[in-house]
Amino acid sequence: MSRFFSEKHKSLVPYVPGEQPKDTQYIKLNTNESPYPPSPKAIEEAEKAAKRLMLYSDPECTPLHEALAKLLGAEKDEVLATNGSDEILNFAFMAFCDENHPAAFPDITYGFYPVFAEINHIPYTEIPLRDDFTINVDDYVGIGKNIFIANPNAPTGIALPLSDIERIVASNPDNVVVIDEAYVDFGTESAVGLTKKYDNLLVTQTFSKSRSMAGARLGFGVGCKELIRDLNTIKYSTNPYNVNSMTMASGVGCLNDEDYTKANCQSIIKAREYAVTELKKLGFEMTDSKANFIFARHGRLSGEDIYTLLRKKGILVRHFTKDKISEYNRITIGTMEQMETLVKTLAEILEEN
Amino acid sequence: MSRFFSEKHKSLVPYVPGEQPKDTQYIKLNTNESPYPPSPKAIEEAEKAAKRLMLYSDPECTPLHEALAKLLGAEKDEVLATNGSDEILNFAFMAFCDENHPAAFPDITYGFYPVFAEINHIPYTEIPLRDDFTINVDDYVGIGKNIFIANPNAPTGIALPLSDIERIVASNPDNVVVIDEAYVDFGTESAVGLTKKYDNLLVTQTFSKSRSMAGARLGFGVGCKELIRDLNTIKYSTNPYNVNSMTMASGVGCLNDEDYTKANCQSIIKAREYAVTELKKLGFEMTDSKANFIFARHGRLSGEDIYTLLRKKGILVRHFTKDKISEYNRITIGTMEQMETLVKTLAEILEEN
Repeated sequence: MSRFFSEKHKSLVPYVPGEQPKDTQYIKLNTNESPYPPSPKAIEEAEKAAKRLMLYSDPECTPLHEALAKLLGAEKDEVLATNGSDEILNFAFMAFCDENHPAAFPDITYGFYPVFAEINHIPYTEIPLRDDFTINVDDYVGIGKNIFIANPNAPTGIALPLSDIERIVASNPDNVVVIDEAYVDFGTESAVGLTKKYDNLLVTQTFSKSRSMAGARLGFGVGCKELIRDLNTIKYSTNPYNVNSMTMASGVGCLNDEDYTKANCQSIIKAREYAVTELKKLGFEMTDSKANFIFARHGRLSGEDIYTLLRKKGILVRHFTKDKISEYNRITIGTMEQMETLVKTLAEILEEN
Repeated sequence: MSRFFSEKHKSLVPYVPGEQPKDTQYIKLNTNESPYPPSPKAIEEAEKAAKRLMLYSDPECTPLHEALAKLLGAEKDEVLATNGSDEILNFAFMAFCDENHPAAFPDITYGFYPVFAEINHIPYTEIPLRDDFTINVDDYVGIGKNIFIANPNAPTGIALPLSDIERIVASNPDNVVVIDEAYVDFGTESAVGLTKKYDNLLVTQTFSKSRSMAGARLGFGVGCKELIRDLNTIKYSTNPYNVNSMTMASGVGCLNDEDYTKANCQSIIKAREYAVTELKKLGFEMTDSKANFIFARHGRLSGEDIYTLLRKKGILVRHFTKDKISEYNRITIGTMEQMETLVKTLAEILEEN
């Protein structure tokens, strides 16, 4: 670090994104991207927008917010698009958390939550998952903290039913509950409908997974208009033109092609069920994932060994070194063909080791 | 605001971007956009990237950082691309300023600096410009604060010579000096070369003005590798994938077409000189602008009246209400044809009022 770096950040440990290797052609199952290209409508709209780049993007994101509102059954002023859902999560930490309003989230979850808390100097509690990686809902009922829950959770893929989400939201009326639904489209019920009933609920989603637009950086939040107004205050105080015009246009194109998104989600769910069945036959244990990844360990080979051996054979998965989960790998669900290759390769690895 | 908004932000007054009207077709001279489309190479690269959006963008921005480094005569680890230059300016406030390292900048300058300071709870001093809107360099020599100077300044367009920039940088060796060169390509000498000599200098630039890519949101910083590393720590703690893949690709395309950028800058400089000459004939007073805008007032009509009357006639310019500059309008330089229309319209207004 430079001699100018503020003392307040000196203990900061940044988030580490999954590898984006440039050297070899891997089957890339490590960052939960979609194996399918973006909707042709998304591509077409992005191409049109590229020709008009000399003009600033619309800071109000009007057409995109209208399309999102329509999809979600919300009003335009109840949604806010951001530069990926990381941005709206950070905005929520900035807007609603402080020394008197600490944050709470599971100890095993999206690894960015503690980083957002640290950079914003917000006290936080990491609440342990149960041994089977499920969230104990009672741990969150009436705790009087701002709560961040990924549903389904990452990297476990385990989902909470909507009734549990509602218990948490209803029992913490003076705190904001953020439900991070990055993976909701692969089989979990969304909490968006509850934002009509609770003024303390913010739901965030992303175009990176089910919508094949990870490279476009587009996320959004849904909540009552007062919450959204606060998040807009943060946006207009940091980066008013946060969503570029190509991303905005491709987002609208994507939302005009919901059948495409739904069909892709169905294919991924099918490939996930296939992978789960076959990996069980090979002796893998897995959590009950409702996401576009599985979380798997094997009794005979360590998590790190499986990661390394797969990598040698050209398949990239994500291995976390955190104690409780170091025996596992998070494996993104790709096409059925990719899953067949995965199963075959894991069978080979188990035979050879 | 919601009942959940943190007390620490309650006095926050966000930045107000220039109008992006949707109702009428204006001649839009209010947000310093380029009148020329982006380079065909930028468009082509963006289109290619749109087809691959299912993959995350490269968080290391490798090809873009390489192209920028080549352009600037820097190393790859001495540059950092961001989601517009607003983002890198905010990162600099976050990384280098705190209670013990306050900020200083002119009282008349880019209106976002005080907002960045406020949202990051950084004490700051607004140093008055001289009555002729020039910066008194002595005000900044050895002041022991982190300094933010737009060069040329906005909305005045007045530039400091490189020797003055160096005096400021050299005399504040224990503080970071940020030179915001958003408008540098229209006739000001860049301070990028000085980053080799001074470890406390960060230069920021943008693709929004001279490169016709305002809608793409692409800015960058250049400085010694330790400064850039700190800014990366902030980036990886807030939004590692801050630059989307279409913007990254179009940025590389643009940098591969420097002749196009240079030719556009020359056309804009020519149109500026034309506008200055003609507006003087109409009795306007102007600062000596080296940017892609002019800053003009007329003895007989108020700044607000001119703004309103131009708007009625279909020309949008930017009027600021701040006391010292409320008699002025900032008028973006468009094509020669647009400047001819501007001159004709202002002549009509002066005749009619």
